[in-house]
Amino acid sequence: MSNSNSSMAAQAVAHVYAVTGATGTLGRAIVGALAGPADRHIVLVGRSQSALEEVAAGAAASNSAIHIVAGADAAQPAQAAQAVVSKLRDVVAALPGGRVRLVLVQNAGTLSDLSKAVDQYGEDEIASYTTVNFVAFAALTARFLEFAKGTAAERITVVNITSLLAVKAFANWGLYAATRAARDQLMRVVAEEHAEDPRVKTLSYAPGPLEGDMQASVRATVGDAVQREQYARMHREGKLVRPADTARLVCDLVHSGGYESGSHVDVFDLMPPPE
Amino acid sequence: MSNSNSSMAAQAVAHVYAVTGATGTLGRAIVGALAGPADRHIVLVGRSQSALEEVAAGAAASNSAIHIVAGADAAQPAQAAQAVVSKLRDVVAALPGGRVRLVLVQNAGTLSDLSKAVDQYGEDEIASYTTVNFVAFAALTARFLEFAKGTAAERITVVNITSLLAVKAFANWGLYAATRAARDQLMRVVAEEHAEDPRVKTLSYAPGPLEGDMQASVRATVGDAVQREQYARMHREGKLVRPADTARLVCDLVHSGGYESGSHVDVFDLMPPPE
Repeated sequence: MSNSNSSMAAQAVAHVYAVTGATGTLGRAIVGALAGPADRHIVLVGRSQSALEEVAAGAAASNSAIHIVAGADAAQPAQAAQAVVSKLRDVVAALPGGRVRLVLVQNAGTLSDLSKAVDQYGEDEIASYTTVNFVAFAALTARFLEFAKGTAAERITVVNITSLLAVKAFANWGLYAATRAARDQLMRVVAEEHAEDPRVKTLSYAPGPLEGDMQASVRATVGDAVQREQYARMHREGKLVRPADTARLVCDLVHSGGYESGSHVDVFDLMPPPE
Repeated sequence: MSNSNSSMAAQAVAHVYAVTGATGTLGRAIVGALAGPADRHIVLVGRSQSALEEVAAGAAASNSAIHIVAGADAAQPAQAAQAVVSKLRDVVAALPGGRVRLVLVQNAGTLSDLSKAVDQYGEDEIASYTTVNFVAFAALTARFLEFAKGTAAERITVVNITSLLAVKAFANWGLYAATRAARDQLMRVVAEEHAEDPRVKTLSYAPGPLEGDMQASVRATVGDAVQREQYARMHREGKLVRPADTARLVCDLVHSGGYESGSHVDVFDLMPPPE
């Protein structure tokens, strides 16, 4: 009976998600958390066609429709934004009509060179890092909102996958921390700009220190000895966050809408740190 | 007697300041607040030689040494940073020796297009604005710190002229707010990176809504009607901050060192809002 109810509700609304950085550790986990119901379209965005196909294959057993945007390179923000929105336009146009909700999950991003303090950055490094981690983010935010607001979508959500570093500074995270702070603040402004438009919400979500490649890279490269030891201990003691856990939490939060638009939510606001 | 004491102290330390955006309303006020004592070298940084010469002429009656770096264009971050540091290197090399304090005041910056919401930004606009207002800032921070730490300077300070927008979001300020948040966070990371090096401090200073051209532009262009009316009222009622007042406050604060490194200080933390 509850199955029948949720099935009826599911038919009533089509959910269209785009997930950038879909081939990374967290991106895969987010796709895994989203895939399932037949009322969902999930657009996987990344650079490598083969890696995206692998992620799509992993979600093929679900009832959700999986789409791919390959060749999306954050070093080319305008083209990448255009490619994502173009695919979303096609997906929305092919829907049978009825209620639609659009969600953009901006998970793409790179670590800055954690071996370096700010005074060791090169000018080209600053420029290219900022392009990939902020300009591409802002460009896709702009083009997604422009597109989405032109549709009949009843709910439009931009999710910024951010970090504790956006709100707390640590040594050796200069460019990463600065660009995450910029992303968070852009989300707050978008929220203010839609204070009178309940369709549009933004969320900045800090997924925590994740098990996987990215944390291994942090442990291997971070120049600050205190942090290196801290992360090594968390790794040894199994205190890193499981990607599937944090992905489930953010997807549930977005689906429920139970957050203040523009806010920064940390995984440890939603669950206790691993014992 | 106190004159004699302060004169001895003054001879003991050479103060070298570089001020970017030196030809703008606040830049001129900062130069005015700094110029005076004979132990000060002030490097005025900007694009226009003639505008810089005009500012220099205004400070010529002081006992401070005034230097100019013209042609510094934040749209070319590497060249601009190089030009500033090259001049500072010359100024420091020409000092007679003894104690030196180096201060970089990063006041250069532009308003973003306040008529636009985030979804109206163009990709090129996002890229070029970010270059001028964050990449150039970070590049100069990096090169200045690298240079300064290689000298015998006993105190090295980076001042980020920021805004309330770095910490509070308002509609139509997307790119401005995001890049100011990024600048603030970079300053916090630099502070963390020098937690064990008391020579180096950073300060993010929000000068307030200033009388002058920039506020006139805000009132003329901001898309949000509530803010337009609010700023017009502040203007009518004489409640905008006088550039000379806020410039004096930040210069005194930097000189005294009476702030926590990495912190964001607002003009209204230091004085009551105009009656």
